[in-house]
Amino acid sequence: MKYNPVEIIIRKRSGKKLTREELSFFIKSYLNNEIPEYQMAALLMAIYFKNMHPDEIQTLTEVYINSGKRITFPPDMPTVDKHSTGGVGDKISIVLAPIVAACGAKIPMISGRGLGHTGGTLDKLESIPGFRTDFSYSQFKKMVKEVGFSIIGQSKELVPADKRIYALRDVTGTVESLPLITASIMSKKIAEGAKNLVIDLKVGSGAFIKKMDKAEKLAELLMQTGKNLGQKVSVVFSNMNSSLGEYAGNALEIKECIEFLKGKKIPDIYTITKMLAVEMLMLTEIAKDRIEAGNMFGTVLENGKALEYFKRFVQAQGGNPKICDDTSLLPQSKFKIPIISSKKGWVKSIDTQAIGYALIEIGAGRKTIESQLNYAAGAYLPIKVGVFVDKNSEIGRVYCDDEIQGLSVANKIRKSFLIIPSKSEYDENYFKEMELIYGLENNLDE
Amino acid sequence: MKYNPVEIIIRKRSGKKLTREELSFFIKSYLNNEIPEYQMAALLMAIYFKNMHPDEIQTLTEVYINSGKRITFPPDMPTVDKHSTGGVGDKISIVLAPIVAACGAKIPMISGRGLGHTGGTLDKLESIPGFRTDFSYSQFKKMVKEVGFSIIGQSKELVPADKRIYALRDVTGTVESLPLITASIMSKKIAEGAKNLVIDLKVGSGAFIKKMDKAEKLAELLMQTGKNLGQKVSVVFSNMNSSLGEYAGNALEIKECIEFLKGKKIPDIYTITKMLAVEMLMLTEIAKDRIEAGNMFGTVLENGKALEYFKRFVQAQGGNPKICDDTSLLPQSKFKIPIISSKKGWVKSIDTQAIGYALIEIGAGRKTIESQLNYAAGAYLPIKVGVFVDKNSEIGRVYCDDEIQGLSVANKIRKSFLIIPSKSEYDENYFKEMELIYGLENNLDE
Repeated sequence: MKYNPVEIIIRKRSGKKLTREELSFFIKSYLNNEIPEYQMAALLMAIYFKNMHPDEIQTLTEVYINSGKRITFPPDMPTVDKHSTGGVGDKISIVLAPIVAACGAKIPMISGRGLGHTGGTLDKLESIPGFRTDFSYSQFKKMVKEVGFSIIGQSKELVPADKRIYALRDVTGTVESLPLITASIMSKKIAEGAKNLVIDLKVGSGAFIKKMDKAEKLAELLMQTGKNLGQKVSVVFSNMNSSLGEYAGNALEIKECIEFLKGKKIPDIYTITKMLAVEMLMLTEIAKDRIEAGNMFGTVLENGKALEYFKRFVQAQGGNPKICDDTSLLPQSKFKIPIISSKKGWVKSIDTQAIGYALIEIGAGRKTIESQLNYAAGAYLPIKVGVFVDKNSEIGRVYCDDEIQGLSVANKIRKSFLIIPSKSEYDENYFKEMELIYGLENNLDE
Repeated sequence: MKYNPVEIIIRKRSGKKLTREELSFFIKSYLNNEIPEYQMAALLMAIYFKNMHPDEIQTLTEVYINSGKRITFPPDMPTVDKHSTGGVGDKISIVLAPIVAACGAKIPMISGRGLGHTGGTLDKLESIPGFRTDFSYSQFKKMVKEVGFSIIGQSKELVPADKRIYALRDVTGTVESLPLITASIMSKKIAEGAKNLVIDLKVGSGAFIKKMDKAEKLAELLMQTGKNLGQKVSVVFSNMNSSLGEYAGNALEIKECIEFLKGKKIPDIYTITKMLAVEMLMLTEIAKDRIEAGNMFGTVLENGKALEYFKRFVQAQGGNPKICDDTSLLPQSKFKIPIISSKKGWVKSIDTQAIGYALIEIGAGRKTIESQLNYAAGAYLPIKVGVFVDKNSEIGRVYCDDEIQGLSVANKIRKSFLIIPSKSEYDENYFKEMELIYGLENNLDE
């Protein structure tokens, strides 16, 4: 062997920067089964504690990318993608992609399934009768070109190294490492071929990242790595202290997306989607400034062009486009169980992660990668942090096919709301901050 | 599974104290092959960074002990053992055990082989023609009772858990963890059955631990764990900035030991052996105070009783006791190559670890556990830190069977001496400290 793996582990353990050669050697030897799982596990834990220099993150990202295929688009095509770090009720891709495509951008989006307490875009789309996400990359490229966007699943051909190392991180307590998260996100997004990338970095009780300082560090690493590898990256920090929109659950969210594209004003969806769309139009230089980008966003929503793009997308991927005219064609649940508040007062906080986990029990999310979903299951969750609720009022509904399970989930959701008798006990900034859309970082040259 | 291994790893990673149940579950499941190597590796690295509470160290030590057999001696037998953390030229066990046994203590000593730059007591003893270290535990107990002491090798029956986890630590960069070192030492020493233990904790350029602050932390953990598990422990901090005694090499050190037991005054061997012997006689309550203990030490050295005990020991373990009268019966090397100083001045420091590694090349130490030793090989190293040497003077000798290799090793040893033209440039305390015997910590109730 060219290097002694133990010496590399000890160098990282001591906080030293690994050279490009050392790090490539270690990762490649691991992928070739020349370095065993336990040495990789030890290195990952050392990285968790000692972090990585941006150069190391760049090397890791490149090794990930080069481990598999890479999709390419013509250099003059205004390609842009959006990545979300995941939350509860996060259906943004499904409305954002048709809007931005209707404005003239091309969006090659490779998305994921739900895992843990967060939902997955692919699962939501597959609740549309007939809808498929398992296209070849040449079909994918054709749809991006002709329809303006496509959303498919990741095959084993793309960044297999990340897939394998992620699986090891998952069982060794090394998921929550910002450098490792950065390389994982950026390698996938660069391998997909979009020249520009907007990241929806979710922060709060329903996100993987709970605190803003950590989110800012991650944003910096993502943008730095993008810059080093020739991808323009903007990061939008968005709030995940309440579930996003009014619905959580696969078919329920598709219905909500269609209503949104038809003009229904859903405040948080509107604000986040607009911010992300504006950044995507700026990165691709389709809009000359943020005001123009904002106007374009408004126009394609109002004139029905975004909805039209969505219909074409559903049809192109094998789904029934009639759901856009008649959402009752989507899977429907047998029971609707009200969630009744047992207290009167203001919602101080919502354990959104607990809601995500509760919804898994009725099949709205996955326990394991093999879990069967119940597409109709989910919840209506219109109450956000800071809202007043009355005792015995309906604060939501559970949609389910099993009444007993549904009652139990309704109870768990009820308990996830922390209701306080008086707002005045708390700093008034508290409630503002809990629902703020946090802002933006980018490395556009302006 | 009773616990989720990942959750235990994450708890330790977050610096939380693991419960007795969690830690026992993890280690036992690992030993039963229910938890894979990579999860154990991740936990070990998390322990490296987040340390362990004394309760956790106690649990780990107990799990180690209970993984194998345990040797027992009658409760009224004054059993005491000595453990050294390892150094270059460390032959102390070989003179200490017969001295303390001659004073009336019983010393059941299970010792190790050389690895890395440090020598091993078993290797040194096996350079005596016929000498064996592979006795059964019942033979071992019989020798301890009849001869007063015995030194044998560790079988697989004793603390197999430590053996397996040590092998994993060795390849995952997690050897240098004080809590893991503590559990490893204490489990072996408690399983051996001695009620009392003195630890020779070596500090300096030729030791695994280079700095006093780290040594003090380790001492505290060792004594605390001993106390928790009913073993009385004293720790002697001893200097390893120069090789110990005048010789390094297996047969050469046996010869030196015999000369010492016959009355030759070798200052550092004398001082360290006396300190350790005094503590062993105090722990076993054979001496009523340190003055009496010191006198007993002097008496058995002067009246030949210690040498007599050594002879009986060599004979009991199959060796030729005539080596005590005629050390030329020990293996002899073909060549003696002088080490010539190329500079005039004072020895500021010696890279004792580098000397240890150089000696491996002529077969005086082991590269791997399977390495063949050349028992006759080694070096004469009379020069200590602080000594004046003249240009072109002989500062040592290499004993070897291959002249070319010997010349190369002589050159490496020469380079390991840092010689400075004037002592006055340095703090005068520097030289004192470099050769100081550092002192003692114990948990005797006095």
